[in-house]
Amino acid sequence: MPLKTPVEYVESLRRLKIRAYVGGERVGSIVDHPAIAPHINTVSKTYELAHRPEHQEVMTAISHLTGERTHRYTHIFQSADDLVKKIQMLRLLGQTTGTCFQRCVGLDALNAMYATSWEVDAVEKTDYHARFRRYLERVQREDLMLAGAMTDPKGHRAKRPAEQADPDQFVHVVERRADGVVIRGAKLHNTGGINSHEILVMPGTGLGPDEQDYAIACAVPADAPGVLFIFGRQSNDSRKLEGGCDIGNPRFGVVGGEAMVVFDNVFVPTERIFLNGETKYCGGLVNYFATWHRANYGGCKGGNADVLIGATAKMTKILGTDKNAVVRDKLVEMVHMNETTYASAIGASAMGYKLPCGSFMVDPMMANTVKQNITRNVYMIGRLSHDLAGGFLATMPDQKALENPEIAPFVKKYHTANPDYDVMERIKMGRYIENMTSVTTMVEAMHGAGSPQAQRIVMLAQAGIEEKIKMADTVISGTDDVPGLPLPVRELAATKG
Amino acid sequence: MPLKTPVEYVESLRRLKIRAYVGGERVGSIVDHPAIAPHINTVSKTYELAHRPEHQEVMTAISHLTGERTHRYTHIFQSADDLVKKIQMLRLLGQTTGTCFQRCVGLDALNAMYATSWEVDAVEKTDYHARFRRYLERVQREDLMLAGAMTDPKGHRAKRPAEQADPDQFVHVVERRADGVVIRGAKLHNTGGINSHEILVMPGTGLGPDEQDYAIACAVPADAPGVLFIFGRQSNDSRKLEGGCDIGNPRFGVVGGEAMVVFDNVFVPTERIFLNGETKYCGGLVNYFATWHRANYGGCKGGNADVLIGATAKMTKILGTDKNAVVRDKLVEMVHMNETTYASAIGASAMGYKLPCGSFMVDPMMANTVKQNITRNVYMIGRLSHDLAGGFLATMPDQKALENPEIAPFVKKYHTANPDYDVMERIKMGRYIENMTSVTTMVEAMHGAGSPQAQRIVMLAQAGIEEKIKMADTVISGTDDVPGLPLPVRELAATKG
Amino acid sequence: MPLKTPVEYVESLRRLKIRAYVGGERVGSIVDHPAIAPHINTVSKTYELAHRPEHQEVMTAISHLTGERTHRYTHIFQSADDLVKKIQMLRLLGQTTGTCFQRCVGLDALNAMYATSWEVDAVEKTDYHARFRRYLERVQREDLMLAGAMTDPKGHRAKRPAEQADPDQFVHVVERRADGVVIRGAKLHNTGGINSHEILVMPGTGLGPDEQDYAIACAVPADAPGVLFIFGRQSNDSRKLEGGCDIGNPRFGVVGGEAMVVFDNVFVPTERIFLNGETKYCGGLVNYFATWHRANYGGCKGGNADVLIGATAKMTKILGTDKNAVVRDKLVEMVHMNETTYASAIGASAMGYKLPCGSFMVDPMMANTVKQNITRNVYMIGRLSHDLAGGFLATMPDQKALENPEIAPFVKKYHTANPDYDVMERIKMGRYIENMTSVTTMVEAMHGAGSPQAQRIVMLAQAGIEEKIKMADTVISGTDDVPGLPLPVRELAATKG
Amino acid sequence: MPLKTPVEYVESLRRLKIRAYVGGERVGSIVDHPAIAPHINTVSKTYELAHRPEHQEVMTAISHLTGERTHRYTHIFQSADDLVKKIQMLRLLGQTTGTCFQRCVGLDALNAMYATSWEVDAVEKTDYHARFRRYLERVQREDLMLAGAMTDPKGHRAKRPAEQADPDQFVHVVERRADGVVIRGAKLHNTGGINSHEILVMPGTGLGPDEQDYAIACAVPADAPGVLFIFGRQSNDSRKLEGGCDIGNPRFGVVGGEAMVVFDNVFVPTERIFLNGETKYCGGLVNYFATWHRANYGGCKGGNADVLIGATAKMTKILGTDKNAVVRDKLVEMVHMNETTYASAIGASAMGYKLPCGSFMVDPMMANTVKQNITRNVYMIGRLSHDLAGGFLATMPDQKALENPEIAPFVKKYHTANPDYDVMERIKMGRYIENMTSVTTMVEAMHGAGSPQAQRIVMLAQAGIEEKIKMADTVISGTDDVPGLPLPVRELAATKG
Repeated sequence: MPLKTPVEYVESLRRLKIRAYVGGERVGSIVDHPAIAPHINTVSKTYELAHRPEHQEVMTAISHLTGERTHRYTHIFQSADDLVKKIQMLRLLGQTTGTCFQRCVGLDALNAMYATSWEVDAVEKTDYHARFRRYLERVQREDLMLAGAMTDPKGHRAKRPAEQADPDQFVHVVERRADGVVIRGAKLHNTGGINSHEILVMPGTGLGPDEQDYAIACAVPADAPGVLFIFGRQSNDSRKLEGGCDIGNPRFGVVGGEAMVVFDNVFVPTERIFLNGETKYCGGLVNYFATWHRANYGGCKGGNADVLIGATAKMTKILGTDKNAVVRDKLVEMVHMNETTYASAIGASAMGYKLPCGSFMVDPMMANTVKQNITRNVYMIGRLSHDLAGGFLATMPDQKALENPEIAPFVKKYHTANPDYDVMERIKMGRYIENMTSVTTMVEAMHGAGSPQAQRIVMLAQAGIEEKIKMADTVISGTDDVPGLPLPVRELAATKG
Repeated sequence: MPLKTPVEYVESLRRLKIRAYVGGERVGSIVDHPAIAPHINTVSKTYELAHRPEHQEVMTAISHLTGERTHRYTHIFQSADDLVKKIQMLRLLGQTTGTCFQRCVGLDALNAMYATSWEVDAVEKTDYHARFRRYLERVQREDLMLAGAMTDPKGHRAKRPAEQADPDQFVHVVERRADGVVIRGAKLHNTGGINSHEILVMPGTGLGPDEQDYAIACAVPADAPGVLFIFGRQSNDSRKLEGGCDIGNPRFGVVGGEAMVVFDNVFVPTERIFLNGETKYCGGLVNYFATWHRANYGGCKGGNADVLIGATAKMTKILGTDKNAVVRDKLVEMVHMNETTYASAIGASAMGYKLPCGSFMVDPMMANTVKQNITRNVYMIGRLSHDLAGGFLATMPDQKALENPEIAPFVKKYHTANPDYDVMERIKMGRYIENMTSVTTMVEAMHGAGSPQAQRIVMLAQAGIEEKIKMADTVISGTDDVPGLPLPVRELAATKG
Repeated sequence: MPLKTPVEYVESLRRLKIRAYVGGERVGSIVDHPAIAPHINTVSKTYELAHRPEHQEVMTAISHLTGERTHRYTHIFQSADDLVKKIQMLRLLGQTTGTCFQRCVGLDALNAMYATSWEVDAVEKTDYHARFRRYLERVQREDLMLAGAMTDPKGHRAKRPAEQADPDQFVHVVERRADGVVIRGAKLHNTGGINSHEILVMPGTGLGPDEQDYAIACAVPADAPGVLFIFGRQSNDSRKLEGGCDIGNPRFGVVGGEAMVVFDNVFVPTERIFLNGETKYCGGLVNYFATWHRANYGGCKGGNADVLIGATAKMTKILGTDKNAVVRDKLVEMVHMNETTYASAIGASAMGYKLPCGSFMVDPMMANTVKQNITRNVYMIGRLSHDLAGGFLATMPDQKALENPEIAPFVKKYHTANPDYDVMERIKMGRYIENMTSVTTMVEAMHGAGSPQAQRIVMLAQAGIEEKIKMADTVISGTDDVPGLPLPVRELAATKG
Repeated sequence: MPLKTPVEYVESLRRLKIRAYVGGERVGSIVDHPAIAPHINTVSKTYELAHRPEHQEVMTAISHLTGERTHRYTHIFQSADDLVKKIQMLRLLGQTTGTCFQRCVGLDALNAMYATSWEVDAVEKTDYHARFRRYLERVQREDLMLAGAMTDPKGHRAKRPAEQADPDQFVHVVERRADGVVIRGAKLHNTGGINSHEILVMPGTGLGPDEQDYAIACAVPADAPGVLFIFGRQSNDSRKLEGGCDIGNPRFGVVGGEAMVVFDNVFVPTERIFLNGETKYCGGLVNYFATWHRANYGGCKGGNADVLIGATAKMTKILGTDKNAVVRDKLVEMVHMNETTYASAIGASAMGYKLPCGSFMVDPMMANTVKQNITRNVYMIGRLSHDLAGGFLATMPDQKALENPEIAPFVKKYHTANPDYDVMERIKMGRYIENMTSVTTMVEAMHGAGSPQAQRIVMLAQAGIEEKIKMADTVISGTDDVPGLPLPVRELAATKG
């Protein structure tokens, strides 16, 4: 069965020669590095749950290529139900890990590439799609983890790729060879790449006809020569190295272990190239990816918020405020915001429609509302969590204070609230809340899958403003009379002349 | 085919001897009364669209009782898809009429009664369900319009039905006869009753074992002796009588023509009684009704908001502000709020699950988020409409000013904005916006299907706070280790002792 | 003493030959017209309270021209304390009348004209200021009511005055004579003009050098030949004519009785002209007026909201929900929003600074925040009022229903909530809330003294973004070292190179 | 002159034998400790600016005790102007340091103690006030830094001090001696105590008559035997030790260096006791302190937000998005929220009123609105900053990456946006934004000076709900007729009977 176990996943990573830098230093073994291991632990959960019978339906699917049961994270969406199940899988994983589990980017990238390569071939008579299917079969068979890589550095935001002072601000082809191409550039905020098997590189924006070299989509092994990962600094990252109660989420990571992936003149053989110069399909590819991806946030952040709400509710018990009507009303508000985005993500999925290639796309308007609300709600939910958890969040003691016998008794004594709960429960819940509402976490929710304004641009395009104006015209004209109905609409005499 | 035409609907109403009061006066013919006709026009649209081939799928369904194609407004939900189609029907009708089309209350009441009567019978060995199915068959066959009647006056809100100074503050049985019961009381805010064929009376709240007389559900013909309707006053209602450009929505009504229905010792024969004394099922009945009904608001208000957004967008063209980036961003915000609730309503429907009786219920948490957001968004959407449409909304000229030649030229001249648009377009769009954001309209959206706090009570019950606490406990304990995985979680030594 | 009594005010109005149209008809006597009388009643309160010893300090001031005690509504602000007292006067009047009392526009117009005429003279060596002081002395001596008239129809919003298809879209000079000018155009949304003695006409926008004919400011008697008032239609305006419990605010008007004032070739003698062709001062004049006026909303709407909050709190007692913790929390939220804008208005006033002419201007940034918050808070406060007052607001019975003995007993019986309160109290409170949250009321709060975007333009100009960037540069550079302090700032070595 | 220089302040700290723990270790010299020095640097600014002539008016005041010019931070408020100047001082210091400067707690504690001791003496014939004046004179003469200590650990929140399982959860007297008392307990979230000269201990809540031992207010030297400080852990605190570009605010601290202060059987001589057993004055003392303190947040957070807005605006220039209309509108929104709370704080101060002892108190309602808005606005301002600054905030490189020549060129190249700006500017601005929106910073703004609910309790008490109901009653009764005015109010006949 093509479903890796967690151990197989970890061991397969260990075999890769990934060139990664954390804290400015070259990492010997990513698997054993304390800053990376938590992210690997998180991904391991995605492998683990796929083996559990009770989660089989949401965690796996039957491949349309092979007919075999594969991990849902390598599956091409075959129905609206597949889209719904994806959201359910994300909420389950969010609840289980309390953080980002990274594989969604690769999943949506596979789907975007699948649909786009089909569409390019249909018009251009290229053979990208067949090539991509071969690649996909291997991904499914080996249950690989993929990182999608889309976001370019972008340089000066008011300029196009071809106008940048530094042409490398967007990944592009710098050399064309008989057997492939050489690419240069970087992708930023790359989720999970550092502990993936493969990187699926895609253009990060729509392109003009003069920007052919930027129209490149391809798969690159994570340890290909010229690929290097530079880990971004996260809020409170050094606590991962300290261990102890300050760590927040002790087993899992914060967000997705985002890194800068540098492509320093990386050679890509032809078999791994899925788009090469066809600029007019780039906008569509980005759009496909972003649309699927924006709906996801109603699932994963929903699961994460469940844990955050749980931690907050626990805090009110520890404090002894849990019976207060206004406190309960604030918990309800957290739940309400969370369920709104989950419901919308389900709606977007249930309204999924078939693309020309046969796979399924979520409703674009709904998917964009999900993400737009996330960019607001994580702040409002975090704020309510801070409200209920108290000032303690800002002044919690550290592990070291608990280890020094001169002061530990004071620290414990004076941080005990409801004595039914051990003080360590309070501290650990507090650190988890801090973790989940840190700048790194919030900003990921704000900007992942596109900034708020990106969603609004899609919404305006999707809004059908002119159709709405027609509806208003029809209603106020009063002319949409019911045929044969003897009830006259009121005269609107004055409107004449 | 059991689908009435609009004309048949109107003629069938004409045959009823409905006792109705508008503006304090007994109405001769409801069909010809200018305050009621707009509401009849709106309902007529529901009959009309069911005959249009392009809308057949959303407007009709195959009855599970008869196998015949019936109006979706008399259909028992047989699948999640039926629930989704209901929401789509509501949005279509909302877009077509720009107001409330009233029949949803009856639809959800039929479904609530269907499921509850089944459940009562299953336990109590009564025969309400069979009785109700007979009734339902007639409703479907004759394509009747039903008004659900649930909201009691409630008297002192801190007291239960049996504690009220006036026992009639909740509808109750005042006499039991061999062939039926006599009921007394009233139902408030009753949507569509005044132009319905039948009233489906249900208890308005959960009841205690000592409140058996209040546990009564039954069907009453709208023109049964002892039934009278007292029309509530609406914002700007007298303009309906004036006609002209001040009317707002020239053909259709404002909200649902809400009335107080008085049951002044009304006799109900046994065949029309579907619950009688089984107090412990009342809470469930109310809950079923409310849950379906709360999801609806994402459909109907979504359609209404489409028209409002269209009217607002039109206003920006008339004013010449339509190219402004901030103006466009405000339109996007209106769209965003509107699509959020629509997406959630679709989500709630797509997650519909089978009840014991075989019919389908929406997801309760999602349904409640829909309504909760509506109680906020209508105000925010209205506010943005006012922002973009301008101060003109507060000082628009009236029809009479346009008819007086001394001043009409000034009125027209100085209210012309972009001269490409006739001044009457501006006035009529303005009046429609005023109409759609009037107190009557807003308050209906706020309190229909339950006040905001009612939704929050359900949400808290549905939130699974204890399960969420368990998730948080699991995550922060770090004990949910991946089996066999060699990566150790960081030591949490200090937590011991 | 130059303080009119209410009776004197009314009688002085009666002597004017104001040409007004209400409901399309020429009004015989404005004083006796049921649509206008409520507005006159409101203004009468401003005259009445000035005679009450307990309110003397806020309602009157010592004229800097004559040394006599005059009405504060004709006073030129001589100190920050005068500005604070104005806000206090507005809150008192708002609490007393529960509506708009209209005289603020005239007051701020007098002050704007006073300061601008001084500034024009100082540069241009004109004599507008002396002329204006003579005019002002008469206003103070006779305690006149003035309407400021600023808002032009504006036509196509993307075009300047001189670019409009119809040159009359902004008031302008159409003829220049030896003894004065003839003006043509209209002013919209004019508050109080219909029951004022005088209209102070001002340009409505900044002007370019080629728009000299539009640079006209002057005083026009309300009954000057060529001046006519066309009353705008208000939400539920016809109820004023019906009387009874539906009226809302039984004694006073809704908002300010806004009208269109048409200047149909009105001759203005030189003595009444205070600006004539000096285009470059027009922006400043508008700005002065708007800035003072925006701060006002924290006072008047604060007082109005006090009454609305009171009516809402009363409703919770009538319903029996007043002890509920969440209900009380919602009342607190209404109070919080209201006091925020009041506090800001006081802040703007207390920070008042002296203008070149010697009078006092409020802090512009603070004044704009007041109005900006008002454009949001009135909706949120209204929403909470609707939430607490219940669905009743949308379906309240009308006066006629209470007069028909067939139904009056039902209406009373079933609208009685807590039986300690008479049902009429509930209805009247409900109607008042409807009144205060109607479209006319909300839109006035949104657009009066400038639309939301107008405030944001000022805020951006006032924000000192470049200064804030400098602050950030200084802080992050860490170079602002404390002289002589031995504590070194951490090395920032990497920043070099 | 009793104004310390920064150097004198630092040297005076060096002479103290403060027992402090940071990171679980006893600190040798607080002045030289990298976690504490930034906080000392910040306070030094308060000393420094008092010597600058251009800031003399806001930074200093004339002591009413000695007639000498003293630091405003040791001054008893003698007028509303003193209150306004305090807010201005806070904004200036907030703009200068971009963080919390700590001395406000001591200032408001001095004022609260001053007023309360006067009031106790007036009734109880005690001599606390004279004693306190002697203490205050020394504070002013030596320009001491004081930390107010009010917040007790509080244990189980639903229990009173006397009901706690551990009686030490609130500071209390454990031994009474002839020459003083011995106190035990702790104060949490203590701002600035670790680098203060003196701690002013006050009860943290209103007390019942049986809680006399908890009614203790006194001054304790920061290095008194039995006093120890345990530094709370802050977000990203270890970066202070690393130095480099990750530090955020390179010179100054994050928030106020909050610590737990333990009073481990501390002896307090009589001369330093200002309240001892008079339980009924404790609520008032807390209230005085909290009211002054809540208004402060409009000043200090206003200044901090100026820097944050500046940093965000700078980021838009670096990115090249600064010309975008929607981007600018978001900056305006940040400014708007910030100026709203500043304006309210000024309003609260300008409305200051004289207390019985002669000092001045801010308007309580306004002061509470300030803090309530802060608890919301810091999140919304932070959110907009994240929106505009981009995903970069979550994945910025660290100092070490910039020092490793293998990767530094990539890091710099791919984080260069608008090439007019050096990449280090972008990183440092980003780190400062992260710093200012970290959990520690947000939570301090949320809970400092009392949690949101604490403000709402005061607001409800201050709201005058009954008076507002009376206003509503008066308005809707229509009985408040203008004497002698011939205009009749509309008949309300139906209201009778």
